[in-house]
Amino acid sequence: MSGNRGVLYQGPGEVGVQDIGYPEFVLRDGPGVNPANVGREVPHGAILKVVATNICGSDQHMVRGRTTAPKGLVLGHEITGEVVETGPDVEFIEVGDLVSVPFNIACGRCVNCKARRTEICLNVNPDRPGSAYGYVDMGGWVGGQAQFALVPYADWNLLRFPDREQALEKILDLTMLSDIFPTGYHGCVTAGVGVGSSVYVAGAGPVGLAAAASAQLLGAAVVVVGDLNDERLAQARGFGCETVNVSAGDPGDQIEELLGTPAVDCAVDAVGFEAHGTGDKASEEAPASVLNTAMDVTKAGGSIGIPGLYVTGDPGAADDAAKEGSLSIRFGLGWSKSHAFFTGQCPVMKYHRQLMEAILNDRVHIAEAVNAVAIPLEDAPEGYQSFDKGAASKYVLDPNGYLGTG
Amino acid sequence: MSGNRGVLYQGPGEVGVQDIGYPEFVLRDGPGVNPANVGREVPHGAILKVVATNICGSDQHMVRGRTTAPKGLVLGHEITGEVVETGPDVEFIEVGDLVSVPFNIACGRCVNCKARRTEICLNVNPDRPGSAYGYVDMGGWVGGQAQFALVPYADWNLLRFPDREQALEKILDLTMLSDIFPTGYHGCVTAGVGVGSSVYVAGAGPVGLAAAASAQLLGAAVVVVGDLNDERLAQARGFGCETVNVSAGDPGDQIEELLGTPAVDCAVDAVGFEAHGTGDKASEEAPASVLNTAMDVTKAGGSIGIPGLYVTGDPGAADDAAKEGSLSIRFGLGWSKSHAFFTGQCPVMKYHRQLMEAILNDRVHIAEAVNAVAIPLEDAPEGYQSFDKGAASKYVLDPNGYLGTG
Amino acid sequence: MSGNRGVLYQGPGEVGVQDIGYPEFVLRDGPGVNPANVGREVPHGAILKVVATNICGSDQHMVRGRTTAPKGLVLGHEITGEVVETGPDVEFIEVGDLVSVPFNIACGRCVNCKARRTEICLNVNPDRPGSAYGYVDMGGWVGGQAQFALVPYADWNLLRFPDREQALEKILDLTMLSDIFPTGYHGCVTAGVGVGSSVYVAGAGPVGLAAAASAQLLGAAVVVVGDLNDERLAQARGFGCETVNVSAGDPGDQIEELLGTPAVDCAVDAVGFEAHGTGDKASEEAPASVLNTAMDVTKAGGSIGIPGLYVTGDPGAADDAAKEGSLSIRFGLGWSKSHAFFTGQCPVMKYHRQLMEAILNDRVHIAEAVNAVAIPLEDAPEGYQSFDKGAASKYVLDPNGYLGTG
Amino acid sequence: MSGNRGVLYQGPGEVGVQDIGYPEFVLRDGPGVNPANVGREVPHGAILKVVATNICGSDQHMVRGRTTAPKGLVLGHEITGEVVETGPDVEFIEVGDLVSVPFNIACGRCVNCKARRTEICLNVNPDRPGSAYGYVDMGGWVGGQAQFALVPYADWNLLRFPDREQALEKILDLTMLSDIFPTGYHGCVTAGVGVGSSVYVAGAGPVGLAAAASAQLLGAAVVVVGDLNDERLAQARGFGCETVNVSAGDPGDQIEELLGTPAVDCAVDAVGFEAHGTGDKASEEAPASVLNTAMDVTKAGGSIGIPGLYVTGDPGAADDAAKEGSLSIRFGLGWSKSHAFFTGQCPVMKYHRQLMEAILNDRVHIAEAVNAVAIPLEDAPEGYQSFDKGAASKYVLDPNGYLGTG
Repeated sequence: MSGNRGVLYQGPGEVGVQDIGYPEFVLRDGPGVNPANVGREVPHGAILKVVATNICGSDQHMVRGRTTAPKGLVLGHEITGEVVETGPDVEFIEVGDLVSVPFNIACGRCVNCKARRTEICLNVNPDRPGSAYGYVDMGGWVGGQAQFALVPYADWNLLRFPDREQALEKILDLTMLSDIFPTGYHGCVTAGVGVGSSVYVAGAGPVGLAAAASAQLLGAAVVVVGDLNDERLAQARGFGCETVNVSAGDPGDQIEELLGTPAVDCAVDAVGFEAHGTGDKASEEAPASVLNTAMDVTKAGGSIGIPGLYVTGDPGAADDAAKEGSLSIRFGLGWSKSHAFFTGQCPVMKYHRQLMEAILNDRVHIAEAVNAVAIPLEDAPEGYQSFDKGAASKYVLDPNGYLGTG
Repeated sequence: MSGNRGVLYQGPGEVGVQDIGYPEFVLRDGPGVNPANVGREVPHGAILKVVATNICGSDQHMVRGRTTAPKGLVLGHEITGEVVETGPDVEFIEVGDLVSVPFNIACGRCVNCKARRTEICLNVNPDRPGSAYGYVDMGGWVGGQAQFALVPYADWNLLRFPDREQALEKILDLTMLSDIFPTGYHGCVTAGVGVGSSVYVAGAGPVGLAAAASAQLLGAAVVVVGDLNDERLAQARGFGCETVNVSAGDPGDQIEELLGTPAVDCAVDAVGFEAHGTGDKASEEAPASVLNTAMDVTKAGGSIGIPGLYVTGDPGAADDAAKEGSLSIRFGLGWSKSHAFFTGQCPVMKYHRQLMEAILNDRVHIAEAVNAVAIPLEDAPEGYQSFDKGAASKYVLDPNGYLGTG
Repeated sequence: MSGNRGVLYQGPGEVGVQDIGYPEFVLRDGPGVNPANVGREVPHGAILKVVATNICGSDQHMVRGRTTAPKGLVLGHEITGEVVETGPDVEFIEVGDLVSVPFNIACGRCVNCKARRTEICLNVNPDRPGSAYGYVDMGGWVGGQAQFALVPYADWNLLRFPDREQALEKILDLTMLSDIFPTGYHGCVTAGVGVGSSVYVAGAGPVGLAAAASAQLLGAAVVVVGDLNDERLAQARGFGCETVNVSAGDPGDQIEELLGTPAVDCAVDAVGFEAHGTGDKASEEAPASVLNTAMDVTKAGGSIGIPGLYVTGDPGAADDAAKEGSLSIRFGLGWSKSHAFFTGQCPVMKYHRQLMEAILNDRVHIAEAVNAVAIPLEDAPEGYQSFDKGAASKYVLDPNGYLGTG
Repeated sequence: MSGNRGVLYQGPGEVGVQDIGYPEFVLRDGPGVNPANVGREVPHGAILKVVATNICGSDQHMVRGRTTAPKGLVLGHEITGEVVETGPDVEFIEVGDLVSVPFNIACGRCVNCKARRTEICLNVNPDRPGSAYGYVDMGGWVGGQAQFALVPYADWNLLRFPDREQALEKILDLTMLSDIFPTGYHGCVTAGVGVGSSVYVAGAGPVGLAAAASAQLLGAAVVVVGDLNDERLAQARGFGCETVNVSAGDPGDQIEELLGTPAVDCAVDAVGFEAHGTGDKASEEAPASVLNTAMDVTKAGGSIGIPGLYVTGDPGAADDAAKEGSLSIRFGLGWSKSHAFFTGQCPVMKYHRQLMEAILNDRVHIAEAVNAVAIPLEDAPEGYQSFDKGAASKYVLDPNGYLGTG
């Protein structure tokens, strides 16, 4: 049995790398593990030697102290790995397979999984539908920013790459299949992005950039990305997007200047509840700002995909309503324009195979779009810090040297 | 040329019946007519002798003084009639046809009409996409609570009943095709109601009852209707719905008691912005209350259809945010449950033909479900008043004696 | 360990009831078992005490000798049962559960199962995608017309009834969930049947009657059923369908007489490759006859759902082309009408839960529609014979006395 | 009033250019005009000065004498033009607009047009649903391979290009919007082509190449094009497709060699009823050959889009069945694989706007993909001949010098 180094949340603003236990085919007690899950047997699981595991914007919510995540929680829900051991119930996944792990853990046996809604699986999180690795209130499954990780229901959850060599060559692209690529893509699909669409993507962080790249892959004619961060906007322009800096004035006015029309066909909110205002108010938190802008700039009849996270409770919010997850939304505006709104986690399994095919056949260059940067696992704390400061990069941890960072 | 009696808005709480002009194939100036529409030629129009025209809950918003509707506005957007004259451009509609008029006026030539989105036609309302007869801020098309009415783009808009005798026999059902039956049905369709669904319908007014009947027609297994008005709830139980009086306590608790589970598959908001609270707070306006309840009682993964009207401005609202159409919505709750939200007017043309077939073949008894009551045109003021007080009836005006009220 | 009586194919026209082995958690060699499946471990399986198991029209293809089914094959793919034992990998299904078994066996782990296409599961039949119990060329899984049966991948495949008492009361309805109700429903869904539709259902056998009942549940305005068998047509009229006896003349002419128009919105082929001609040619096999009629009577733009079985090889066919599964189809007619055609087995799991809800909430009476008749297991040979002669009944075998036939 | 030169069918294998009448707002009698359409008033029409008008493969069916087209029929249904006159009922289209004309003529007022099914409009062709310019049995609307052409229902049918200069720069791309680009795209959409798909396109003529380019635009991972013509296959390879020459052996075997797997996700039949066999039989007409190959190479669960034309009668067919439009199809093979089949004309209006956006924003280079070649109108006979011989070109006629060929 090997050792296992992993990334831990150590309190607001603090992340560390420590020895954690090597995975077993059982979920042991630990920080953040739901009591009803303690001792749960995982004969259907696989243990992975982690090939790549990414730092995600949603990890930052915890690290910033905006959640009730306990100290000692092992972080990480974006995992790509090599299977090194399988439980007795695993039938089709084999040792040696190189696989992508959807961030949403799913049983493959409940009514929601059967309907492709793996993001709200009923059997993995005793608190509520839906789960993820290394995340507060998600059942307590151990995070994957580590050398080794356990994936339950391996036959169901894992996506096998067809060819090992080819996969390792494109590993910085393929590692985006565990979360942000499908998440951005899901935002676009629910927004109705298709051939010839014009789309506004709010947010030029990794999910926003993944949404923008997805929109292009779906045939969008025009993609406009909005953010406050010029470096990230430059990244978006780098692969053919138009951009607006929302601190520079009304996004609708800027879009009109760019496109000759003030409205787009549809919008994707890749920001979520930590949104800031626009124009003069860009320095303030304004949790409904992105949604209100999306309704403002989207044509009547358009849809708004909302992969950006909104929470049921936000102790650190600016006002009482937001603390309870209530936002003051210009709902009448959306209603008058017949808008539709699609929320929630992306059901990764619904999309990851087709996106893998697009990557393997050179139809999309997602690592380039999000500026993937591989760093050693031990440098995770610096990665978190740099990302939090707004670096236009997506940090990919390399716990076992597959990425050649060591 | 005949005279023409019509129903007018005369100020908050006041409705009258007066002589109005007989329709011409041009839109003349008058109360509420958009200046850009004044003098607009309507060679594509048809003049109808009105067979039935209904009082709608959305008329009440104007009559209560909750909008900027000017005095003198001729009311009425639910129109069924007999064609008595056609303009020179009309090719397929003929004098003598008995027809249903969708409440949304549409040109049949713009990009939205071509995509079946007649509720946001671009060519009929200079202010914004979408229009209706006899309604504030909708372009100024004259209302149809009158003896005669003009329908523009007649070949496009009108639905002809295949057989005159049969149609007159079922006229109290067929008159619901102009608005509330498709509107309730649209709420269900967007909510994803299908065979075997359980659905919560908020509101037991005519649209809510039409939604409930639609849900049954679509094969729903269980329909629960919520309202504050016991008489209306009794009406819902009359055709096989379950009911909860939301003033009697938490709707979710009541649903759990009824169904043995606290959640339904999907929900329809047939109330809109004049919503009241639940339980103790049932006497107060609480504009986000219905939406918040809908999220509370709908399972993860469900959709919420929102045919209930939300406005961009509500001068009479209880708080400043609501005055601007902003509502404090528990959006984080919906997000955590992966809910989707569908807003806006119903595109009546998308549904009216199939619903007509269902009526003509006795698959649904919508007049009975909404308790249609025919009254003479001259009694419109009493109809408005009684409806405003919460009568469990849908009032159908009979301006020309087809319904035998005279 | 109990004994186990089961129904066997014993050669063309011959069916018998014999002792067969009690199920084990392994697939043993036997008549029709694919060599690659021999010895396959089934730790994910459940053993059911069979509550009800139905004779199906597709069983008749084998019994008539129209296939290569070997003597000794245990028949039966329509199974409802009580769980009496579960394998070590089963996590959610429990002993004592009353369950419905989809006739298509599926692994719940392959790309097709993940996409709800359980009818073409890749992991259960070594010959080709898709499998079923007790059927030739389907992998060799033992049939369920027996006292006890093994269901692989039990957590994935089984649908649990929520309440035992309620289920036993409606068991003749619920037993139709394993095949014909979803199959008829799938035919309607793929044909695009919806509220207000007019639909032609070819075939008044159990699947045709289930399709007709499904069409009504979906809100169809008019359902016309065609067959050669007057007794079966009377059964269809019994629940509100229109009917045409296709031996009495051109189906289109008869439809025109009934409906006043020669065409319906869509059609369902519930007959398949053993079709006969129409009018004068009704006594001859004419394998493309139903498809050609469907194109003839369906409006331009309509779809045709084809749950009726067409085979890749038919040694007993009337002509050489049909022996190889080739049919002379008036494809140009369909093309000129922009028809769409949907073929294949029904993916039962996609529909069985919602149809169960419709049954349990009294929205449909499927047992009545198909005239379900319970008979003792030992009477299976008489059931097969009577059904083959065209009885307007659906025979439900009662191997353990739950149905009270003993 | 100007003169008007146009292209006429003059008998099998013969095409000529002659003076034809200048369009009026009425349909006059002439070769191929349906008697019920003679004298039909067209006040809703627009007269176009033709900018570009293409020779289509479906014109060849007539020119080869495979139809009942009368001598003297003015050819041409792929029309792009400048509006020079509008009828009195035209409200939104204006003189000077540069527009694309969908090849399917539609009224914009019937039930099918309202449902976006303009390919089966009920009001323009007295014979049957659906119509086109310059085509046998399509109502008799005069073809557009001419200097001037009449478009009925101009507000409904025409697509205006937003900017004249920009449009003229990309005119060889935009001219493909009238037929082949949407037609190829429709084939892909109905086949279910999406991001990551592998697709087989049968036929490397202009529609096949347009389908291949459409598949790429839709995000397909792999596009394999099959044909007998090496020059056309080279054209397909020129923009990144894989190719198989079906005369060189079994297409499935060749696909397996290319892709490492014998099957693709879905297929498009861009050939139709004049198909030839494969391998040894490539020199014989074999009208079901493409459909049978499509079923053979498409995975279980896939769909087959069939924009290639199949006819109700083919006097010149090789066998009696085909003469009546009957084909011997391996339907059992498709059924066993759960295939779906989508037939019929493309409803161009459903797609042309979004494809225009894709062209104008440089997301697709359709003129290059199909090798568009502009030639003078007077050279139409040579164009027809060269195309019939298998040139890997799409000929665009230039009747008024906009394309600079003169």
